[in-house]
Amino acid sequence: MAQKPSIPKGTRDFGPQEMAERNYIFDTVREVFRTYGYSQIETPSMENLSTLLGKYGDEGDKLLFRILNSGDAFADVDMSRPLASQVCEKGLRYDLTVPFARFVVQHQNEISFPFKRFQIQPVWRADRPQKGRYREFYQCDVDAIGSRSQLCELELIQIIDKVFEKLGVGVLVKINNRKVLTGLAEICGFPDKVIDITVAIDKLDKIGLDAVKAEMIEKGLSAEAVAILEPVLTLSGSNAEKLARMRSIMGSSETGLKGLDELEELFGFISSAGIRTECEIDLSLARGLNYYTGAIFEVKAKDWEIGSICGGGRYDNLTGIFGLPDMSGVGVSFGADRIFDVLKGLGKFPDDLCGSAKVLFANMGAKETEYVLPVAAALRSSGVSVEVYPDSSKLKKQFDYAERKGIQFISINGDDEMSKGIVNLKNLKTGEQESFAISDVNQIVDALS
Amino acid sequence: MAQKPSIPKGTRDFGPQEMAERNYIFDTVREVFRTYGYSQIETPSMENLSTLLGKYGDEGDKLLFRILNSGDAFADVDMSRPLASQVCEKGLRYDLTVPFARFVVQHQNEISFPFKRFQIQPVWRADRPQKGRYREFYQCDVDAIGSRSQLCELELIQIIDKVFEKLGVGVLVKINNRKVLTGLAEICGFPDKVIDITVAIDKLDKIGLDAVKAEMIEKGLSAEAVAILEPVLTLSGSNAEKLARMRSIMGSSETGLKGLDELEELFGFISSAGIRTECEIDLSLARGLNYYTGAIFEVKAKDWEIGSICGGGRYDNLTGIFGLPDMSGVGVSFGADRIFDVLKGLGKFPDDLCGSAKVLFANMGAKETEYVLPVAAALRSSGVSVEVYPDSSKLKKQFDYAERKGIQFISINGDDEMSKGIVNLKNLKTGEQESFAISDVNQIVDALS
Repeated sequence: MAQKPSIPKGTRDFGPQEMAERNYIFDTVREVFRTYGYSQIETPSMENLSTLLGKYGDEGDKLLFRILNSGDAFADVDMSRPLASQVCEKGLRYDLTVPFARFVVQHQNEISFPFKRFQIQPVWRADRPQKGRYREFYQCDVDAIGSRSQLCELELIQIIDKVFEKLGVGVLVKINNRKVLTGLAEICGFPDKVIDITVAIDKLDKIGLDAVKAEMIEKGLSAEAVAILEPVLTLSGSNAEKLARMRSIMGSSETGLKGLDELEELFGFISSAGIRTECEIDLSLARGLNYYTGAIFEVKAKDWEIGSICGGGRYDNLTGIFGLPDMSGVGVSFGADRIFDVLKGLGKFPDDLCGSAKVLFANMGAKETEYVLPVAAALRSSGVSVEVYPDSSKLKKQFDYAERKGIQFISINGDDEMSKGIVNLKNLKTGEQESFAISDVNQIVDALS
Repeated sequence: MAQKPSIPKGTRDFGPQEMAERNYIFDTVREVFRTYGYSQIETPSMENLSTLLGKYGDEGDKLLFRILNSGDAFADVDMSRPLASQVCEKGLRYDLTVPFARFVVQHQNEISFPFKRFQIQPVWRADRPQKGRYREFYQCDVDAIGSRSQLCELELIQIIDKVFEKLGVGVLVKINNRKVLTGLAEICGFPDKVIDITVAIDKLDKIGLDAVKAEMIEKGLSAEAVAILEPVLTLSGSNAEKLARMRSIMGSSETGLKGLDELEELFGFISSAGIRTECEIDLSLARGLNYYTGAIFEVKAKDWEIGSICGGGRYDNLTGIFGLPDMSGVGVSFGADRIFDVLKGLGKFPDDLCGSAKVLFANMGAKETEYVLPVAAALRSSGVSVEVYPDSSKLKKQFDYAERKGIQFISINGDDEMSKGIVNLKNLKTGEQESFAISDVNQIVDALS
């Protein structure tokens, strides 16, 4: 009858091995977040569409998964009006940022500000599925909201530093500041061309200085404007040198100077705090420009070719859309899927993450099983992971099971062992075999560790 | 502009404290599952409606949350046919059981059987929200599939025993067997009245023997049939006595005798394995009758009035609906919300789950902060959770922050400490204050632990 079952395109099952590897990433970030005093929260998978719509642009609105109203959704529809908006009031969350803003506003009286939270939950986007892009994927966000201090930016960089140290991945943190970009656009006389200027700068590596300048002209900048910008197009040297060069041309933009002050303060903190990871100013960083108001971050893996694996920035008015203005915050999001790919690619996952049992008691029949049940229970009470094979199948099958699951020891006990009151342990890696008094649980625990 | 934001009815936000308490439950069960060699998997939140429909009865079909097709869902609808089925192909999962069955069938060639998996994920039901019933809630399922051995049932009881021991909750495990119920219906001559008989038996405590007998007659059983059943209606004594009484009347039902054999074997294993928790045969247990084929379990908290907090049973043909017949399995589901209520009600959550930072470095200004950043970083590297207050606010505000977040130590360092090269630690519980050389991180770690 049944056809082979399948899952919706763009979604995934995670089996034991991949699940263990993903948990390793989540456990690592969670542990680091906690060391810095961030608390975990969760929000519902579904939000009211009124919370979600208009927050991600027209394109984002189209990518929302909408949930049909329960009951008879079509009972009272007016066929002359668009149906979707009449039969759906809820949608699946598209990111963790908007629900976080909604959470902060809704619970503002219960929250101690500055509020330092992290959130690790799936999000859904009706994007066209393709390699590395899914319709359901986890985001892993950490934010501090309710303070304008650059120490919050520092803390996120410390967290990034520590997370990738623990994961064994060399990374580069690129840092920019929205105010500096605004300042550049101002000083060259084209304050409304921030995005065009940034997009052009971003191509410098690929197309070279002349082509970048040509692109700026094409986008409507004057030759004089491009000449003013030229010194920052070819920024090089240390972060201090870059800052000095920018300061020399930023004189007339208050916003730009404020951005440079912020960058300078942040790099001062970075140096005081002893960050291991290389941090560099990158003016071409334009991530989420219509959203961020201060620092912008992006993290690249050094030894693996992939897009940014973590990124974020400071926003001054995220909660304003829900009626709570002037609540500045800063956050970054760790990209679990890309970090997974980097760890896989570099072979950085620890062995034996899957947490297989340490020992399998083979099943030699009912009596023999009753004989080993108490020692299996005692071992588990000592924290050892133990399996008892449920069926008295052929030993070959039981050995295969142990091998496929990566179980290191097998214990086979029959009449002989029962009469002597012992249990055997065979190390499947070395082939060595030892016997122990069944009552001597401590010694068995030692042998297994 | 904005109205106060809200979330869909029947859904919840989990703030830091509740989140920490929920994680405590999940971490506890996860740890126990691992000790028994169960592996975690995850399946997508959305499944094809063809996977979900018809698996939960007509009522269940109505409670599925359906997801509107992406793109223009209404572009090609035929207005003369029901719209819902034309515009929705996906739904949110209703439980973890059907997706698990789908997973096993879809991945059968990658799986080592017997397959022991657990799964902790939210499920969604468009039920009318009410106290204790939500439209989004977590399920926490553990199953072993691919073996008919009663050792699998034993293992689940061991897991239940260990989970509630760790959580500090006294429980009673009620055990029944579907085959015994089938047998009783057979021996009294009404094989199609299994559910009516079980529902009636279930009311014994509340309405008494005579009323139960009357209900059976009302449901169509003969007086002779009720007379045959009477000895099992008033079952009492030990599990062995109950088994003996049932065996005395079950002679003519092969299925019933098989059920009694299974119960007897299981109680033999329970006694061999040294289960701490009381386990009792309860014939009135009827949970999911059209689904289970062998053992049925239900767990009740002893000292808190609430429905069952964990339950499950053996199914012989769960994967048959997806084309893989004869794959017997057994599983239980832990009810996270009810277990949460029990732990709250009995005051069994450990203190300080929220994992507040251990120490807050007060912010006395830019210089002072740069002075403490390295020691804060060093403490974190030693595993201590540390916050540095981001703003140089009034000390009163910083003390309030520490208090609200339950941070035990505050460290206030100004010119005096900087000139001496020391840091202060004030214990907010005892009021005691001590000073340490800023370079002596080990001693500071000791003082904080």
